[in-house]
Amino acid sequence: MSADFHFSITATDGAARAGIFSTPHGKIKTPVFMPVGTQATVKAVTVEQLNEIGVQIILANTYHLYLRPGSDVIQRMGGLHKFTNWKKPILTDSGGFQVFSLGDMRSVTDEGVIFRSHIDGSSHEFTPEKAIRIQEELGADIIMAFDECAVPDDRSYIEMAMERTHRWAKECIQTKRREDQALFGIVQGGIFPDLREQSAKFISSLNFPGYAIGGLSVGESKEEMFRSIEIVNAVLPTEKPRYLMGVGTPYDLIEGIRRGVDMFDCVLPTRLARHHAAQTLKGRENLLKSENISNPEPIDISCGCYTCRNYSRAYLRHLINVNEMLASTLLSIHNIFTLTELVRNIRKSILENRFESYVNSILKGLSA
Amino acid sequence: MSADFHFSITATDGAARAGIFSTPHGKIKTPVFMPVGTQATVKAVTVEQLNEIGVQIILANTYHLYLRPGSDVIQRMGGLHKFTNWKKPILTDSGGFQVFSLGDMRSVTDEGVIFRSHIDGSSHEFTPEKAIRIQEELGADIIMAFDECAVPDDRSYIEMAMERTHRWAKECIQTKRREDQALFGIVQGGIFPDLREQSAKFISSLNFPGYAIGGLSVGESKEEMFRSIEIVNAVLPTEKPRYLMGVGTPYDLIEGIRRGVDMFDCVLPTRLARHHAAQTLKGRENLLKSENISNPEPIDISCGCYTCRNYSRAYLRHLINVNEMLASTLLSIHNIFTLTELVRNIRKSILENRFESYVNSILKGLSA
Repeated sequence: MSADFHFSITATDGAARAGIFSTPHGKIKTPVFMPVGTQATVKAVTVEQLNEIGVQIILANTYHLYLRPGSDVIQRMGGLHKFTNWKKPILTDSGGFQVFSLGDMRSVTDEGVIFRSHIDGSSHEFTPEKAIRIQEELGADIIMAFDECAVPDDRSYIEMAMERTHRWAKECIQTKRREDQALFGIVQGGIFPDLREQSAKFISSLNFPGYAIGGLSVGESKEEMFRSIEIVNAVLPTEKPRYLMGVGTPYDLIEGIRRGVDMFDCVLPTRLARHHAAQTLKGRENLLKSENISNPEPIDISCGCYTCRNYSRAYLRHLINVNEMLASTLLSIHNIFTLTELVRNIRKSILENRFESYVNSILKGLSA
Repeated sequence: MSADFHFSITATDGAARAGIFSTPHGKIKTPVFMPVGTQATVKAVTVEQLNEIGVQIILANTYHLYLRPGSDVIQRMGGLHKFTNWKKPILTDSGGFQVFSLGDMRSVTDEGVIFRSHIDGSSHEFTPEKAIRIQEELGADIIMAFDECAVPDDRSYIEMAMERTHRWAKECIQTKRREDQALFGIVQGGIFPDLREQSAKFISSLNFPGYAIGGLSVGESKEEMFRSIEIVNAVLPTEKPRYLMGVGTPYDLIEGIRRGVDMFDCVLPTRLARHHAAQTLKGRENLLKSENISNPEPIDISCGCYTCRNYSRAYLRHLINVNEMLASTLLSIHNIFTLTELVRNIRKSILENRFESYVNSILKGLSA
């Protein structure tokens, strides 16, 4: 790991860990939830609103930014931090997950993936080298190895994709040039315990500054997901940060942290917001329902977010009902706050050696 | 005027006036531009963003809020200030302009207007008494008399509508109950000098705490508009605030203030923002144009707004291009700031007795 990056574990409680990950744009207290800013903005919120929530790091998507406005444009504008005015750490994914999600619009070879843009059908190719170059142009603090995220049921395909992911991981390390970016490796292997173990061992052997667990939360059962996390984390070095990709319900955050995960990202809080749903530690709730028409209470009386401190359910319901953009903003703020505050409180419980009692009290009230 | 309201003129420069209008929710320095929050929010911006711009008062629309969520709901939620979390003054229109704009969906009698909702076709009636009752439920600081805004070419209809407006003005005064609201009268009379003079005299005789000039900026020429303002302001008492309804281009603000207007409102800055256009003191500009793709400059290098201090044209162009809501937010902030700052600077020029030289320097650079 270059001098710009340093991970230290401050406290553990069972397998749960509280740490600090230092990056060129500041320290991240882990465990951490990272909101997703797919197209160089977390949808419907400003960087000031993210700062007020206490967001420490945001994610941006390489596939989307490569297509629009182009990673070359963002590089010329001074990189993602300058472009977006977000001064804290940023993580970019490798584009792998998105291009593999294109289905019929892409074909995979051992060299990479040829795909058509979902916007205009134009043809493009991502290789491990290309994915790293694009991420170097974007300029995030943490960048991801190019991997193949395969669906969880076909063992022979999963195995082939895993081996390809391993070869590509080495290519990513070889091609990487910037010293101010930390490249994380990604463990694949689907829901197969032996493949997960094999992948965790191989990826660990490449000595990345951090490790991600990919290919989960893609249709497998909760039991399969949690078992896979356990298998992988038993192999990954304890002294490096661990990132569970694409996971972001309160339940999954708790169960991930319980198994030693340090970082999470998910589009869920902002996506739910745009669909009128509030996430609380009791579950999800569509605010458009008519009981809210004259309800002067906030979404959650115990929530300290800007939205709950200032707005009634009646106002939020009205904004949703008349299709005002402010509804998405206020609900996104609440939903991101819910996950950020949960993880902040979990971190505190780890530092105070009361993780189990804290998360069990949360799990008791949780329905989604 | 009740003790809650007081208007004092601090300085004049020609016909231009700088004043202070005190209301139950604070003092308004005039001249003032009021952004429109039709449905109980200025579209795409938060009250904090409005405060940072220096907005002093916002407008809300009685017709829209009567239909959704219902003025009874807003009353039960503690009124518009509590509902929206906007703690400074609010002005509501009377609903007249909106219901008369419904065309075939409404019919006018001497008692009021029967109309169908643009949302669900349901039938409703607005009378002077009803318009005041609704505005009393909404709870704005400044409320407007129910008037008929008629189109500018048919003299006999304009005259009839003006006379109806005069009768309704008296009914509004008689029906008004709340002491913490100032009811403004509205002068009509289309583009006909004698009718405008007659209307200004009649409405002035009713001794309102403030006067609006209605029925302008609805299709007449600039010359007709400015002449009408001059005729009306020659009659209106100098010691009361004067509000030119629905006007909000830099040019019209300057020419209105030059003729003694104190207050303005317009949906233009936020509507332009949602159509990707930036308003500057040079004119309007669609930011989606391809020259902006790699342009690191702000919209206006001399603008002090949040958007221009923090974001490039390249970023704004990208947000517009990928349809991110943040584009509307950042452009609305810029456009509202442009008008707010212009009027703030004009006020300063009046206080310093250099109004003409200041506005002429602005007019020279202005193309729209």
